[in-house]
Amino acid sequence: MPVNLPLPDAATLFPIAGVRMGVTEAGVRKANRKDLTVVLIDEGASVSGVFTSNRFCAAPVQVCREHLGSGQAVRAMVINTGNANAGTGADGLSRARSTCTALASRLGIAAEQVLPFSTGVIMETLPIDRIEAGLNAAIADAKEDNWLKAAEGIMTTDTQPKAFGAQGMVGGKLVSVSGISKGAGMIRPNMATMLGFIATDACVSQAVMKQLSLELAEGSFNRVTVDGDTSTNDSLVVIASNKAGNTPIAALDSADGQALKALMLEVARKLAQAIVRDGEGATKFISVVVQGGRSEDECRKVAYAIAHSPLVKTAFFASDPNLGRILAAVGYAGIDDLDQSHIELFLDDVHVATQGGRNPAYREEDGQRVMKQSEITVRVDLGRGAASQTVWTCDLSHEYVTINADYRS
Amino acid sequence: MPVNLPLPDAATLFPIAGVRMGVTEAGVRKANRKDLTVVLIDEGASVSGVFTSNRFCAAPVQVCREHLGSGQAVRAMVINTGNANAGTGADGLSRARSTCTALASRLGIAAEQVLPFSTGVIMETLPIDRIEAGLNAAIADAKEDNWLKAAEGIMTTDTQPKAFGAQGMVGGKLVSVSGISKGAGMIRPNMATMLGFIATDACVSQAVMKQLSLELAEGSFNRVTVDGDTSTNDSLVVIASNKAGNTPIAALDSADGQALKALMLEVARKLAQAIVRDGEGATKFISVVVQGGRSEDECRKVAYAIAHSPLVKTAFFASDPNLGRILAAVGYAGIDDLDQSHIELFLDDVHVATQGGRNPAYREEDGQRVMKQSEITVRVDLGRGAASQTVWTCDLSHEYVTINADYRS
Repeated sequence: MPVNLPLPDAATLFPIAGVRMGVTEAGVRKANRKDLTVVLIDEGASVSGVFTSNRFCAAPVQVCREHLGSGQAVRAMVINTGNANAGTGADGLSRARSTCTALASRLGIAAEQVLPFSTGVIMETLPIDRIEAGLNAAIADAKEDNWLKAAEGIMTTDTQPKAFGAQGMVGGKLVSVSGISKGAGMIRPNMATMLGFIATDACVSQAVMKQLSLELAEGSFNRVTVDGDTSTNDSLVVIASNKAGNTPIAALDSADGQALKALMLEVARKLAQAIVRDGEGATKFISVVVQGGRSEDECRKVAYAIAHSPLVKTAFFASDPNLGRILAAVGYAGIDDLDQSHIELFLDDVHVATQGGRNPAYREEDGQRVMKQSEITVRVDLGRGAASQTVWTCDLSHEYVTINADYRS
Repeated sequence: MPVNLPLPDAATLFPIAGVRMGVTEAGVRKANRKDLTVVLIDEGASVSGVFTSNRFCAAPVQVCREHLGSGQAVRAMVINTGNANAGTGADGLSRARSTCTALASRLGIAAEQVLPFSTGVIMETLPIDRIEAGLNAAIADAKEDNWLKAAEGIMTTDTQPKAFGAQGMVGGKLVSVSGISKGAGMIRPNMATMLGFIATDACVSQAVMKQLSLELAEGSFNRVTVDGDTSTNDSLVVIASNKAGNTPIAALDSADGQALKALMLEVARKLAQAIVRDGEGATKFISVVVQGGRSEDECRKVAYAIAHSPLVKTAFFASDPNLGRILAAVGYAGIDDLDQSHIELFLDDVHVATQGGRNPAYREEDGQRVMKQSEITVRVDLGRGAASQTVWTCDLSHEYVTINADYRS
């Protein structure tokens, strides 16, 4: 059961002019499952992508980087679930390229104008015959108001589709943003997450797209973790279809650029948090706020140490305020000159530890009360600077072990 | 159920002349439980310690460092379970010092000659009244052949006492080594482990003790991990009682020094591996060997990335050869210029992946066969150098979640 994750609301999933999606059942791994999605993008769009930092990046990630670097405009994407096409060597690369060629020939575009994405089991051969056989049906299904279906089409261990939208005024024009994401395990994005696609009809010059996608990833997908495992396939693609009629945004730090970024960041954050809320076996949604650091980097280290500690995560699962485990994680986060006597720890509004020790006013029942909630904020003040960072994570439950012990069977 | 961990064998637990241990039930946290241990060391011994790198190190660790740095000879140790006296601020330090004073006054030595150790729940007040009330009984119980009882006296979530011994010739004299350790969770020692005590009757000059203890930790406790959580209380103490009559070892790289180190390392490795074999919820003992690296440091990073991945650990629990998860961990271990096309992966004798992709000769049933074993070696060849490192770990099971969700109740 995801933690406070609403089902997608059709009323806020805005069709994006110039971006059509189609989904079909190709039987990549299992029958009777929407597992193949195509995204068709009208001419004139600006597209950018952010990809995993995993050195064992999947074949489709390598091909995406090649194609985005080719200078040709992206006109289509093809996404399969059931198989990650990662750890597949030269053969995997060739299969990812074949998929692009197959879609390109059906659309009358160049293979370099197609971006491929795969998600699922690692180190298995991608069944391109089944994918190619499904392409025509997926293309025939493509329409602008297919966001929910596309969100379903990219699910693997997700228990719910993840899709959000937003609308607002940019440059005097009403602009729409819609996005989808998938992911529940192998989640510690480090540039982007498993799969995220966000599109707007706003006009944005291609020159600022890279910066926009990086900043969106930084403020959303790069702030979540489920199990600390950075995936081989993490990809975030941002599309501006340039149909809204606003004056094209040529600088991200302009008023219009900031307005659009705020709209898109709202969607990106919801999509990123949705991955944590639907984290494998999650029963709690936890915000880890680390403040008072000398740099954002050290705040991030501490936040991730807490968010990755199996002991902290199982304590949250048990609603047990065994909060010394949080202090231990702060201590091993890698700040060599940390002075424990300056550390303050809060659980929501409850002041648990002060000057590195138990707060004399702290009562176990107050900690217990917060620990029972489904949404909890852990706040650590390092007492050595003004930097802060936030990371979102979930607890570690029996269900996580069950899901990951049985994933392939 | 620990993984292939024999019960201590009394015949190989050698009394160490000049080192006596006594144990009692002090009721630190729970009644009817051996929870207080004293170690009494004859005059003339050489003693050294290695402690946690956690910046939130416990009060007793801070006091140990002070006392070892005082220049006074260590003559006694006092160890309680049930309470870690960590995250306890200035009050915790004062309580750790009180415990030393109480034992010192009973033995007629200085407080600085006592080393205190605590293990158990973090951020609770140490009940020194109960500890002090138990000291006389523990002292009265002290004898040289009490290794097994002492191993029991320091247990927390351990399911078995951990004690090993070895004998051999050093400088023409028969020398004995005995040691005990405890720990099952919050295990990723980074200097030493939860608690380990190793004693020999060999004659070793105090000048080489620090180096000896560091090298022993490096080859044993610094090579194991259960959950990646570096404890606040990790401590390893090495004692040479100097009673064996050998010419005192004045240099560790002498023949005698190397002979003694080999004997002691044998015991230290068994004690360290025992912690993994008894890892919380462990059903498998896994050796992660990373070779072909440019440096030991990068091999260690890769080995720990594999050993800490919840996805890898749950796959081992399930006996599921979902081995792409290992490649993913190799990829995010932090080697920026890693070339995945040089990676080879073996599971025992089974060649799983070659040149970064699935080995065409690999058959799932071969991987399955190895995964079902209780002892498994994962071997990764990075194909970029001659360095190698080994780390020992266990799987992640439902039982781990159960134990850590219920630890305090």
